[in-house]
Amino acid sequence: MTRNEVTEMIVTHKLRKKLTWLQLAKAIGQSKEWTTAALLGQMTLSAEQAKEIGELLELPTEAIEQLQVVPYKGSLPSSVPTDPLIYRFYELVNVYGTTFKALIHEEFGDGIMSAIDFSMDLQREPDPKGDRVKIVMSGKFLPYKRY
Amino acid sequence: MTRNEVTEMIVTHKLRKKLTWLQLAKAIGQSKEWTTAALLGQMTLSAEQAKEIGELLELPTEAIEQLQVVPYKGSLPSSVPTDPLIYRFYELVNVYGTTFKALIHEEFGDGIMSAIDFSMDLQREPDPKGDRVKIVMSGKFLPYKRY
Amino acid sequence: MTRNEVTEMIVTHKLRKKLTWLQLAKAIGQSKEWTTAALLGQMTLSAEQAKEIGELLELPTEAIEQLQVVPYKGSLPSSVPTDPLIYRFYELVNVYGTTFKALIHEEFGDGIMSAIDFSMDLQREPDPKGDRVKIVMSGKFLPYKRY
Amino acid sequence: MTRNEVTEMIVTHKLRKKLTWLQLAKAIGQSKEWTTAALLGQMTLSAEQAKEIGELLELPTEAIEQLQVVPYKGSLPSSVPTDPLIYRFYELVNVYGTTFKALIHEEFGDGIMSAIDFSMDLQREPDPKGDRVKIVMSGKFLPYKRY
Amino acid sequence: MTRNEVTEMIVTHKLRKKLTWLQLAKAIGQSKEWTTAALLGQMTLSAEQAKEIGELLELPTEAIEQLQVVPYKGSLPSSVPTDPLIYRFYELVNVYGTTFKALIHEEFGDGIMSAIDFSMDLQREPDPKGDRVKIVMSGKFLPYKRY
Amino acid sequence: MTRNEVTEMIVTHKLRKKLTWLQLAKAIGQSKEWTTAALLGQMTLSAEQAKEIGELLELPTEAIEQLQVVPYKGSLPSSVPTDPLIYRFYELVNVYGTTFKALIHEEFGDGIMSAIDFSMDLQREPDPKGDRVKIVMSGKFLPYKRY
Amino acid sequence: MTRNEVTEMIVTHKLRKKLTWLQLAKAIGQSKEWTTAALLGQMTLSAEQAKEIGELLELPTEAIEQLQVVPYKGSLPSSVPTDPLIYRFYELVNVYGTTFKALIHEEFGDGIMSAIDFSMDLQREPDPKGDRVKIVMSGKFLPYKRY
Amino acid sequence: MTRNEVTEMIVTHKLRKKLTWLQLAKAIGQSKEWTTAALLGQMTLSAEQAKEIGELLELPTEAIEQLQVVPYKGSLPSSVPTDPLIYRFYELVNVYGTTFKALIHEEFGDGIMSAIDFSMDLQREPDPKGDRVKIVMSGKFLPYKRY
Amino acid sequence: MTRNEVTEMIVTHKLRKKLTWLQLAKAIGQSKEWTTAALLGQMTLSAEQAKEIGELLELPTEAIEQLQVVPYKGSLPSSVPTDPLIYRFYELVNVYGTTFKALIHEEFGDGIMSAIDFSMDLQREPDPKGDRVKIVMSGKFLPYKRY
Amino acid sequence: MTRNEVTEMIVTHKLRKKLTWLQLAKAIGQSKEWTTAALLGQMTLSAEQAKEIGELLELPTEAIEQLQVVPYKGSLPSSVPTDPLIYRFYELVNVYGTTFKALIHEEFGDGIMSAIDFSMDLQREPDPKGDRVKIVMSGKFLPYKRY
Repeated sequence: MTRNEVTEMIVTHKLRKKLTWLQLAKAIGQSKEWTTAALLGQMTLSAEQAKEIGELLELPTEAIEQLQVVPYKGSLPSSVPTDPLIYRFYELVNVYGTTFKALIHEEFGDGIMSAIDFSMDLQREPDPKGDRVKIVMSGKFLPYKRY
Repeated sequence: MTRNEVTEMIVTHKLRKKLTWLQLAKAIGQSKEWTTAALLGQMTLSAEQAKEIGELLELPTEAIEQLQVVPYKGSLPSSVPTDPLIYRFYELVNVYGTTFKALIHEEFGDGIMSAIDFSMDLQREPDPKGDRVKIVMSGKFLPYKRY
Repeated sequence: MTRNEVTEMIVTHKLRKKLTWLQLAKAIGQSKEWTTAALLGQMTLSAEQAKEIGELLELPTEAIEQLQVVPYKGSLPSSVPTDPLIYRFYELVNVYGTTFKALIHEEFGDGIMSAIDFSMDLQREPDPKGDRVKIVMSGKFLPYKRY
Repeated sequence: MTRNEVTEMIVTHKLRKKLTWLQLAKAIGQSKEWTTAALLGQMTLSAEQAKEIGELLELPTEAIEQLQVVPYKGSLPSSVPTDPLIYRFYELVNVYGTTFKALIHEEFGDGIMSAIDFSMDLQREPDPKGDRVKIVMSGKFLPYKRY
Repeated sequence: MTRNEVTEMIVTHKLRKKLTWLQLAKAIGQSKEWTTAALLGQMTLSAEQAKEIGELLELPTEAIEQLQVVPYKGSLPSSVPTDPLIYRFYELVNVYGTTFKALIHEEFGDGIMSAIDFSMDLQREPDPKGDRVKIVMSGKFLPYKRY
Repeated sequence: MTRNEVTEMIVTHKLRKKLTWLQLAKAIGQSKEWTTAALLGQMTLSAEQAKEIGELLELPTEAIEQLQVVPYKGSLPSSVPTDPLIYRFYELVNVYGTTFKALIHEEFGDGIMSAIDFSMDLQREPDPKGDRVKIVMSGKFLPYKRY
Repeated sequence: MTRNEVTEMIVTHKLRKKLTWLQLAKAIGQSKEWTTAALLGQMTLSAEQAKEIGELLELPTEAIEQLQVVPYKGSLPSSVPTDPLIYRFYELVNVYGTTFKALIHEEFGDGIMSAIDFSMDLQREPDPKGDRVKIVMSGKFLPYKRY
Repeated sequence: MTRNEVTEMIVTHKLRKKLTWLQLAKAIGQSKEWTTAALLGQMTLSAEQAKEIGELLELPTEAIEQLQVVPYKGSLPSSVPTDPLIYRFYELVNVYGTTFKALIHEEFGDGIMSAIDFSMDLQREPDPKGDRVKIVMSGKFLPYKRY
Repeated sequence: MTRNEVTEMIVTHKLRKKLTWLQLAKAIGQSKEWTTAALLGQMTLSAEQAKEIGELLELPTEAIEQLQVVPYKGSLPSSVPTDPLIYRFYELVNVYGTTFKALIHEEFGDGIMSAIDFSMDLQREPDPKGDRVKIVMSGKFLPYKRY
Repeated sequence: MTRNEVTEMIVTHKLRKKLTWLQLAKAIGQSKEWTTAALLGQMTLSAEQAKEIGELLELPTEAIEQLQVVPYKGSLPSSVPTDPLIYRFYELVNVYGTTFKALIHEEFGDGIMSAIDFSMDLQREPDPKGDRVKIVMSGKFLPYKRY
């Protein structure tokens, strides 16, 4: 049983049991963002978290073991995503990529925003002209080491 | 004079005049995020904004005209960016792409977060363990039309 | 059972039962364009629509559940399509892409035609020199937000 | 002087002379869609049309000659376009590609919609919820020859 | 059963029954070129033709049904073919591509040779220095429509 | 001066002098197909042929020298051509590739049709339903050597 | 059973029976180079050779039939090989490609070295500083036909 | 002046001075294979060799300096070469790649043939049925280190 | 059973038996780096080593045989890796590639660092500001042969 | 003047002035690894360092300014490098990529080795069987944040 098969099984069982990502997240005491990423094969669960999820979703032992192994990350089937929702994020990187770079360097100097020491929060932002998706990202600035 | 040449000229003149993106943004009354994107060839300036920038950066008339034309967007030289700072954003799309999709659909149903009716704010977030980059994105949710 | 397997099953069962896309569309009260896209794995059905289609095509429960899940969109196996009928549409984008851009910007300013708040109608256009395919597309214009 | 250089020159001169694509189209008695495509390097002008455009945009003789030569077509710098406006059309091909195929085959049998014996009309469609872009495409159906 | 599986089954059964493409073509009253393409998943058979082939090759009902459905065309596993025989044709397009273009435009003006209203004949051409492959292609010229 | 620059110069001078490919071919006593390919940078001229062409098109000595050097072949700017006329030939390889292979192997056994010991003739084929492009290709069959 | 499955079966059975490629080659009276290529899915065996190999490796009838069919050639899973041994040959083409071209043209004029009328011999070359791999390639020179 | 410009200059001057690769090789006391590769930008000349070549080809001092710098190697403009002569070598790697691997491993065990401690000899092999190109390659076998 | 299936089986059995890579390495008397690479399908085990691993991980005979065959190397599913840990190494090659080249040539002249006669050691480097990964690579310098 | 042009100028002037990377590094008080990367366009110099280098290499003011700007990083012209020396490092990532991942996760848990808080040392390692290149890499381990 590969990790991809575990992910497919999680998606199917979650649908059948009518559980939300938020409910699964609360069950293991993590944010919905981290939990969803983990269950979609991008993060590593602790033994207890894996057991908890395994019970909620009725996963076999082998799947519960797999959830504790660090996965080979990358959730997209092609380097330029075809799904319109995900493509919009790729488009933001394409349109705003050099802007991110210019503004972070102006504020911090040479370095990067970590994608590892990173957290994220996604919320509905009510708006009379149509509700909005609000995403707050926070990543540690890492300066390039001189040596 | 192509738009790329205008962008290169802006970067060079800005460097020589020791102006920041923030100062340029204030001069035209827009956010630093939108202004930087515009000056890096991704957005369209009004006639007055273009004139203002043209004076600050001593651009020739042809460049000022070009800034008012809608550009062919996309700021990266390759579909997978090689620059480490920009790559981290690509990586976030790759690792969290299916998570964005799952959570937005759970909250809003089928549709996307607009990358057009969109705004962004990038700030330094002080932190004793090392300051962080904080990015707040806000995009209108657009539901798929049924017909 | 993945969504791709549901799509293959729909195509096979439709063939065997000699149903047309138009008949399936009428059964769920949507246009033939939206319905075909949905049944080919690109749109999301309501619970009733999924049930209706499930009965007409004798689909198993799992397939009916899947039709209510937002799919990972993108219907083509390669970024440049090899099928001649579909390639002609890609060719139109390639030949007329900059024309679409120039004319929409001339009429509306900077922004895009939405592919989400979008509808389409495909009809036979009788013509003595040979009938024609007539496609009417209608997408909301979305102006780039300044901020 | 290559055809690309002619195209760049046309875009620059048109900007300076504040002419619209529609005005250029009227001057040569063709639709704005065909004319824009031709001036962006995708179609071939007659000797008179080239002369007319040459005078309006003050092009050198060499450019006027080039406009009468059949160009190497394809207006995009990459196989998947990065510009958001153009990408939306690529996305429509990606999401609706198999739908186009299914519906045209259902109506006409095996064959294609011609991208050569083809015309197009792009208009503003007023709408209280926000104006829309309306595109009408008409292409001859070409059945696959059996032999 | 997908169309690819039908194609593989046809190739296997033809081998076992020691039938040639020419014999199969004669059985359905079409040329060997069209018939081979159809049986390799590129063209659509009529109900009678599919039944005839089904009997000759002992295909199951599902395969016979599939042969009457318009296939997703494109017979090669990669955009640049690796098989030496097929690559030589790709090489001809690469080496002679601009020559085809120049000569067809010189003779006919702007337009294309149709690959749909098209037929082909492949024969052995005896030659004392070594027999040759002779291919005659005939495609309708389609002029670009002006509008 | 690179070979590409020689090719561009030939195309420009030919246009200015209103010469056809056929006239150039007759001047050097070769077919229009071979001559066009040679002048578009795919074949090698003899010293006399290069001198003849050089006089007709008023080429500088350096260009005449270059025409006698074996060029780096391949006339297309991308592995999948974007020009519709040339793409149709690529499409024929894609749709009929496995058919070419099956029929040549049925007639000749394992081997290829040479693209080197090869000639081609392109003619207008009058037809009341619309004239056709007729292309006759002849390439030596080369059997795979066993050793 | 596809040809790839036949190849995998040959590799597995050969391992189990502890036979070498050289022994298999001798059994069918061909060189080890041609035989290995054939058994790895790149060449076509005669009926007797296929039978002989089938007995030695205990292959089923279907596999023996497949070995007599001309395969779709190309033995590598990616256009740039990842395996270090095979990559070194790709590197030689990359580093020495223009050298092969320059020297063959200097000696023979315009044309190619055939990869079809071709043979190869691979031997150990003893050397006190470390044994060497010696490969002798021999391919017929094919001059470009003028017509 | 980049190394590519040096290479282009060498090719042009060699043509004008009617020197062969063999003559250039003899002048510096190396094989024609190594010398051609070096002059085409793939190897590094000693100071004396560079001076010798510089005099023969009348190169400027800057070019002579460049010839002594280790170049960024790789002589082809695309990962799959389009030139038919060079493609045949790529095809040999594609068709025989797994054969090279199988036979070298059978003879030597796990390791590679070096492309660095490597030499090559290319000769005309007279043959009544048409002369052949004979290439002898010799590369040191390097076993994978165990540690 | 392909080598990929052997690798998946090793990963699964190792997880179930709670063995570390270090323990497996000690069992066969090699370094943890070489052993891990070997068990992940990149190196070749001796008969004894394969037997030892087979017993520890309870592998079937066929898997034990496969471990003694030289594998088709290359452990990544895409040419640019998506996994963040592995991508960082790719990034180092991208950012420092020309630096490696410049410094090795400055020290050694033209040649390469062998990736075959190569060993590696990976250790934890304790550091009060956060522990570090220390990797020591050692590869034989191979000078380009002149001939 | 782009950063690439600055890099080319540095390489040319360094050659003419016969300076080594090590000498340049000492002049600015950094390691030879960091300095070479910086001068090849991958790191950012301080004002004093840029001035120092500018004097040593006689760079114009504009180049000295550019050296203080954070560059768009990535030093390779293609995603898979063609230069043999650099390719060997890419090969190490390809062959050992999953090994790096397995061993770092075994030692540290889920996270990465930083390529930003990173240093490197490259030395000659004398060896009677042929000197070796020794590279010591040290990167901070960054654990994935849970939230």
